Amino acid sequence: MDLNDKIPEGAGPGDVELDFDREARCGFPEFIYGAGKSLEQLLVIVPEMVERTGAVLVTRLEKEAGEVLAERFPAGCHDPLARTFQVVGPEREKRGLVAIVSAGTSDLGVAREALHTLEACGVGAELVTDVGVAGIGRLFARLDRLRQADICIVIAGMEGALPSVVGGLVSAPVIAVPTSVGYGANFGGLAPLLGMLNSCASGVTVVNIDNGFGAACAAIRMVNRFLK
Amino acid sequence: MDLNDKIPEGAGPGDVELDFDREARCGFPEFIYGAGKSLEQLLVIVPEMVERTGAVLVTRLEKEAGEVLAERFPAGCHDPLARTFQVVGPEREKRGLVAIVSAGTSDLGVAREALHTLEACGVGAELVTDVGVAGIGRLFARLDRLRQADICIVIAGMEGALPSVVGGLVSAPVIAVPTSVGYGANFGGLAPLLGMLNSCASGVTVVNIDNGFGAACAAIRMVNRFLK
Amino acid sequence: MDLNDKIPEGAGPGDVELDFDREARCGFPEFIYGAGKSLEQLLVIVPEMVERTGAVLVTRLEKEAGEVLAERFPAGCHDPLARTFQVVGPEREKRGLVAIVSAGTSDLGVAREALHTLEACGVGAELVTDVGVAGIGRLFARLDRLRQADICIVIAGMEGALPSVVGGLVSAPVIAVPTSVGYGANFGGLAPLLGMLNSCASGVTVVNIDNGFGAACAAIRMVNRFLK
Amino acid sequence: MDLNDKIPEGAGPGDVELDFDREARCGFPEFIYGAGKSLEQLLVIVPEMVERTGAVLVTRLEKEAGEVLAERFPAGCHDPLARTFQVVGPEREKRGLVAIVSAGTSDLGVAREALHTLEACGVGAELVTDVGVAGIGRLFARLDRLRQADICIVIAGMEGALPSVVGGLVSAPVIAVPTSVGYGANFGGLAPLLGMLNSCASGVTVVNIDNGFGAACAAIRMVNRFLK
Amino acid sequence: MDLNDKIPEGAGPGDVELDFDREARCGFPEFIYGAGKSLEQLLVIVPEMVERTGAVLVTRLEKEAGEVLAERFPAGCHDPLARTFQVVGPEREKRGLVAIVSAGTSDLGVAREALHTLEACGVGAELVTDVGVAGIGRLFARLDRLRQADICIVIAGMEGALPSVVGGLVSAPVIAVPTSVGYGANFGGLAPLLGMLNSCASGVTVVNIDNGFGAACAAIRMVNRFLK
Amino acid sequence: MDLNDKIPEGAGPGDVELDFDREARCGFPEFIYGAGKSLEQLLVIVPEMVERTGAVLVTRLEKEAGEVLAERFPAGCHDPLARTFQVVGPEREKRGLVAIVSAGTSDLGVAREALHTLEACGVGAELVTDVGVAGIGRLFARLDRLRQADICIVIAGMEGALPSVVGGLVSAPVIAVPTSVGYGANFGGLAPLLGMLNSCASGVTVVNIDNGFGAACAAIRMVNRFLK
Amino acid sequence: MDLNDKIPEGAGPGDVELDFDREARCGFPEFIYGAGKSLEQLLVIVPEMVERTGAVLVTRLEKEAGEVLAERFPAGCHDPLARTFQVVGPEREKRGLVAIVSAGTSDLGVAREALHTLEACGVGAELVTDVGVAGIGRLFARLDRLRQADICIVIAGMEGALPSVVGGLVSAPVIAVPTSVGYGANFGGLAPLLGMLNSCASGVTVVNIDNGFGAACAAIRMVNRFLK
Amino acid sequence: MDLNDKIPEGAGPGDVELDFDREARCGFPEFIYGAGKSLEQLLVIVPEMVERTGAVLVTRLEKEAGEVLAERFPAGCHDPLARTFQVVGPEREKRGLVAIVSAGTSDLGVAREALHTLEACGVGAELVTDVGVAGIGRLFARLDRLRQADICIVIAGMEGALPSVVGGLVSAPVIAVPTSVGYGANFGGLAPLLGMLNSCASGVTVVNIDNGFGAACAAIRMVNRFLK
Repeated sequence: MDLNDKIPEGAGPGDVELDFDREARCGFPEFIYGAGKSLEQLLVIVPEMVERTGAVLVTRLEKEAGEVLAERFPAGCHDPLARTFQVVGPEREKRGLVAIVSAGTSDLGVAREALHTLEACGVGAELVTDVGVAGIGRLFARLDRLRQADICIVIAGMEGALPSVVGGLVSAPVIAVPTSVGYGANFGGLAPLLGMLNSCASGVTVVNIDNGFGAACAAIRMVNRFLK
Repeated sequence: MDLNDKIPEGAGPGDVELDFDREARCGFPEFIYGAGKSLEQLLVIVPEMVERTGAVLVTRLEKEAGEVLAERFPAGCHDPLARTFQVVGPEREKRGLVAIVSAGTSDLGVAREALHTLEACGVGAELVTDVGVAGIGRLFARLDRLRQADICIVIAGMEGALPSVVGGLVSAPVIAVPTSVGYGANFGGLAPLLGMLNSCASGVTVVNIDNGFGAACAAIRMVNRFLK
Repeated sequence: MDLNDKIPEGAGPGDVELDFDREARCGFPEFIYGAGKSLEQLLVIVPEMVERTGAVLVTRLEKEAGEVLAERFPAGCHDPLARTFQVVGPEREKRGLVAIVSAGTSDLGVAREALHTLEACGVGAELVTDVGVAGIGRLFARLDRLRQADICIVIAGMEGALPSVVGGLVSAPVIAVPTSVGYGANFGGLAPLLGMLNSCASGVTVVNIDNGFGAACAAIRMVNRFLK
Repeated sequence: MDLNDKIPEGAGPGDVELDFDREARCGFPEFIYGAGKSLEQLLVIVPEMVERTGAVLVTRLEKEAGEVLAERFPAGCHDPLARTFQVVGPEREKRGLVAIVSAGTSDLGVAREALHTLEACGVGAELVTDVGVAGIGRLFARLDRLRQADICIVIAGMEGALPSVVGGLVSAPVIAVPTSVGYGANFGGLAPLLGMLNSCASGVTVVNIDNGFGAACAAIRMVNRFLK
Repeated sequence: MDLNDKIPEGAGPGDVELDFDREARCGFPEFIYGAGKSLEQLLVIVPEMVERTGAVLVTRLEKEAGEVLAERFPAGCHDPLARTFQVVGPEREKRGLVAIVSAGTSDLGVAREALHTLEACGVGAELVTDVGVAGIGRLFARLDRLRQADICIVIAGMEGALPSVVGGLVSAPVIAVPTSVGYGANFGGLAPLLGMLNSCASGVTVVNIDNGFGAACAAIRMVNRFLK
Repeated sequence: MDLNDKIPEGAGPGDVELDFDREARCGFPEFIYGAGKSLEQLLVIVPEMVERTGAVLVTRLEKEAGEVLAERFPAGCHDPLARTFQVVGPEREKRGLVAIVSAGTSDLGVAREALHTLEACGVGAELVTDVGVAGIGRLFARLDRLRQADICIVIAGMEGALPSVVGGLVSAPVIAVPTSVGYGANFGGLAPLLGMLNSCASGVTVVNIDNGFGAACAAIRMVNRFLK
Repeated sequence: MDLNDKIPEGAGPGDVELDFDREARCGFPEFIYGAGKSLEQLLVIVPEMVERTGAVLVTRLEKEAGEVLAERFPAGCHDPLARTFQVVGPEREKRGLVAIVSAGTSDLGVAREALHTLEACGVGAELVTDVGVAGIGRLFARLDRLRQADICIVIAGMEGALPSVVGGLVSAPVIAVPTSVGYGANFGGLAPLLGMLNSCASGVTVVNIDNGFGAACAAIRMVNRFLK
Repeated sequence: MDLNDKIPEGAGPGDVELDFDREARCGFPEFIYGAGKSLEQLLVIVPEMVERTGAVLVTRLEKEAGEVLAERFPAGCHDPLARTFQVVGPEREKRGLVAIVSAGTSDLGVAREALHTLEACGVGAELVTDVGVAGIGRLFARLDRLRQADICIVIAGMEGALPSVVGGLVSAPVIAVPTSVGYGANFGGLAPLLGMLNSCASGVTVVNIDNGFGAACAAIRMVNRFLK
């Protein structure tokens, strides 16, 4: 019976149709969402992307797959904490400056996913870490940096209060990212998600739980529109 | 048919058994939870309490019932915002100092419920209002007052971030009260409740949504134990 | 007993501390959140704001209060559908162009709240209504307008699919507003809120349910930063 | 002690009573729901079904069990992505045409479960993949195929918007299948489930999360009734 | 200030753009969703629809609005239980037969909404009421009628078990409608909704809570496709 | 137009089919669930029931309807707190003894609904009120009464702890009824419902929120089976 | 450092205080809840229980622990499907008859947990399996057995409809057990739990999800009270 | 490519900024939250903390990491049940007495986490275990100990009733800790969390699910304030 051969475990590479027009339409290249894709698929897609566009960003990558990709494509860079693999295109001047603000070490993976996504689109970015609201002095010590940024991506788990505080201190756009860090009544990030949606600082917008990639894309939309 | 006579609308006053031992056992007098009690019942219970203990505090009171009580018992005081009616006993020296901290004008009812409860037990209390995290300078301007307090009751709706910030700034006990103020994904106070339970400031404890009374009782337990 | 006099029904006007620094800090004036404020308070706050800043925007206003304000301040404008009252300052040149896209007539109130907020800050805005995804041709007929906009605020109830479709068609920033329009398993706006957070269009950000004001503030942050 | 022998791990094969009348009553043969059944049970049931009816479809099959079945019954076909094992009966003419529409590669397993179920009942079916709403041009490119279909099964994770768009473009019955694909506030498929139930396209019906089998059965009910 | 005049309470009639192409595209005329529409709007839309198409169906209508419509348009029919107003076009032959099965008297409004929707499209329909699963004999007494129907719409509140039982007894398509009838842990229809989505009868599909209209539209899609 | 006449507001009395066999089948007469029934319907059903069975129990009755019924049928008894109307049949010897245990005055309505239901079936019953767990001495003072009962129905709102304590003290069957009494995170009775389902006292069973009627029916099933 | 020695992994056996009085108080012996207990603890507790009472029932047992217990105590019986280990005391006459009714093979583990618990207390019990509502003829074929039983324990996953149907057909007490069998919108048993709490058959009571043990204990309370 | 070297798996030790001021500000030293920290990070942080402060407490520690720490730092103590590693500073006189009350053996890990946290701050503490409400005699036997305590931390899973009972018996502060112990409708600790928030004993405060550490910190705040 040959159907077993035709249906590989995980969808076959031929099933995937890449969407190279998206950059024209939406302003950023197609990233590869790694979750649920087999290593076989990735080994077909990644070189195809690199060949056509000179660069690639794979997100939500299993560690093992990332290690294989890093071996096969030595020009690329695997960040296991961010769960990304990235081949950066030729150096170009950075546009804008995005501050990626996070509270705890456990939010760092999400912060780095945002960082790599911004880099992949040539947007300037800077991490401002370890500034949780329970030790608010640390945030004030970094306030100058925050106020210089064009956009603040603010990442927080637990009660998700950081975007409210930042939103009250800066006038730039603030994109909030809840993380699933926490336990008990955190309910997988629901607590900070609700907190951020109810932020008392006006004009804070929110993306999905742990979605550092999405926050970066929102920032890229702004940079593409306003700083071209 | 006479059963209709025997079963008044709302439970009859005779159905209620007061628990005068509670003060001995738990350290605070029995308060009257007004919700679901008929005016008839209140008109029986309130004078009975006053006669035996010289004081009374009714909470969760409908405005109309409060107005009738205020008329009948001119020595008492009706606070429609807090939804309480109170007859204060003979003046005695205040024990301790509780700061009742709140973010917005809409949390004021809950704050005042806490205030009246503390007063009813002879505990010193002070309101510190309008110090939400989106304008954090206002909180810092009041920090000295907060640090002098023995206990901070911190009331907040929306994302419920205020207790985390306060908990990181003071070393005294912090009791957080989520309020149902807000709309949309506030879900009747669920958002600040989850936020406070997940507070990144260690040692913050939480009571039920809008439960200014309960927060005050928790403070009273501390004062009774430690400042007798 | 004089406490009854001191505690008016609803917090007294004296309890409210206005925050005139916010514009300097965050780039937009303090709006008056009308819900939970008594008419008495509003009649104190509104002229105070107008006197100091020449303009005011009150949101979440009860219809009756709006009518009284409209009578007292004939220079102002009451929009009962948006639940706003507004005194617009001296004409100034509009900055930027925000498209406010909505699906059904029932989303119109939220759309207009956004519109008035943008106007209050001198940001250009345009309503693009009745373009729900079940009749997608209507959306395509307006695509040129959408693509000219600097920012798209996309408002939808029911399944909340519209921001995903718009986000796939334009490269500008997209701010999604779920509305509580619908019934049954809509659960007060939870369905479109979850839909928008899970949008398959990258870089769509989300604000709270029915929060047209918040979406406009997010747009104002962008305009203030990038189009000054 | 012999009870251990009598109670095998997993229910014994003798515990299962097959329901061969169901086809007469409901129009489709009894499928074997593989989840929670031991390999031992499957090795008894599968040949019994094949012997009596000439065909069998096992769904929700663990990969290991599927591999053993494929080895034992070379006439059968194991699809690890769909998690099915199938012995197809003698060729017969297909009745009707069902379009199985899906958005992303990660919905493919659910789509194939539907495909195999339709095949097992002699219903014509065709996969239309990779037509997510964020790149809506791809959907329009396939619109002719969709409009030829008697029934559309539309599978989507994330915000679950695809059935609304399809439902607005075709007049045939549309059966929506939410998938658990996604992360964060997807909540295991709850987000697209709610989205589909609130679809603004009239007459879209919904089955359980990831239930490609159920969607196919709903289509089979229509084909059996109307295209006999 | 004339803006008050331009913005009537509720959106003005001019804001509504009717979609007369929908029948061509999806097979059923545009119905008027009455909730959230002002009487003024309805008094504009209804005659416009009648003039162009000879018929109209308004759903989710407030009782008062329905009474006014019934007075103004004596040819129409107001069903306060179903919350509909309907002008039926010229008599035409009914196509198909839909059984609308319901458990209790409290599901009758939903059943009638379905009935009127089917009538508006010229589809044959019949109510089969009072056949709840706790007295299953009553269902069996009506089984012949159910088995003659081309499609069964099954409406149930409480535990929502009726579609499972019906789905096991008939081979025709079964469309399940959960209702918000019940109390306590019914949670506004969530209990029967989840029950129906988890139905053990294969091929049962589900529409939103109380959505008799949507169930009828799903049936109309089938009739239009298969019984033209 | 005469359809308006044929469809009265609320279902017409003719729509209701009474189920007089239920007593034979399940051991208790058909009670009338008053919610959602019009006064017109009740005025038809109640005398019909009384004539055939000599007795009737209507539950979930609006106060106004109850008052009309009490006027029309002076032999009957209206309990507005329990929201019941009852005509008791000829005196017969009570079978068994059910203790109906409740914590607060606000649970009294549910307790009385249970009481009247038991009376309607000739089962002995006794209220044991005001025995909440926060003043556990009051429960111990009544323990003898509880231990004499054949069955304990235990009603509690708030945290719903009472059934666990009672279940640890008596060996008789314990039926727990959560009530929607409370506020904030009570979530309409969800808190005590979950508490009772997770009771650490083995063999406690639970009925729906506020369902005093259902708890009584469960007790009646026991009495009918074991004490006939 | 010796504290490591004093604190074994998992609580030490000395930490557990058995409660031999419970039988006297509540009518059934202390069962051992195996989940979260280490094998070391079980190897201390089980012989202690056997020595004092001649019997033991361990529930929620890991398979490995069960196998070790079966080896060490050959007189005991390990049922891996029910996840129990049991040493039955000296034969005694069975009291009463409990029918344990279940829908699918996947509910069998819960059914057997109930069975072994009843056996451990000398209560007669009989399994009636494979009688789901989608093939209701199978239930009717077993109706005589059900009607002979003193008590029916009815176990169901998916929509949890079986107890409603059984409750409408028998007059004996019905105890419903929801199971976590299912997928998608089953939400770990929430769907059948809500279904059973909302059962339209009066007097059905419910225990926690998968709690065959608790259902049996409820039945034992009845047998102990009424059939001693 | 050297970025792989720069980004270690898990954040590098250099990313962590310790906050030695917190003790001054909040009254307790910085504890190390072990979850999500790599062994490499812990091996840097732990000696740094010990060197500067003479003591350390790591919570939420993986067993393997705990074992390595215990080996490397023989002066420290690893409690695998509490998931802590601790180096206790020089002996000092204990301040106050906290009773840590728990219901079942499965709550013991949470109880011990509280115990070690209190010890780390020099606060006196005592475990009172196995006093669940279903066998309430055991609680009364320990009542004297409870009443001597300055503060009661009460830990419970299942229905979470224990804090209500304790809160009714003692006048000292009561801090309730819900645990995720249980199954079915426990929903990961949601049931006892809601129960405790709705406690009928006034003045009980609540911390997050399984948060023994947080409860201890709340007690430490009291001791630091009142018993210095």
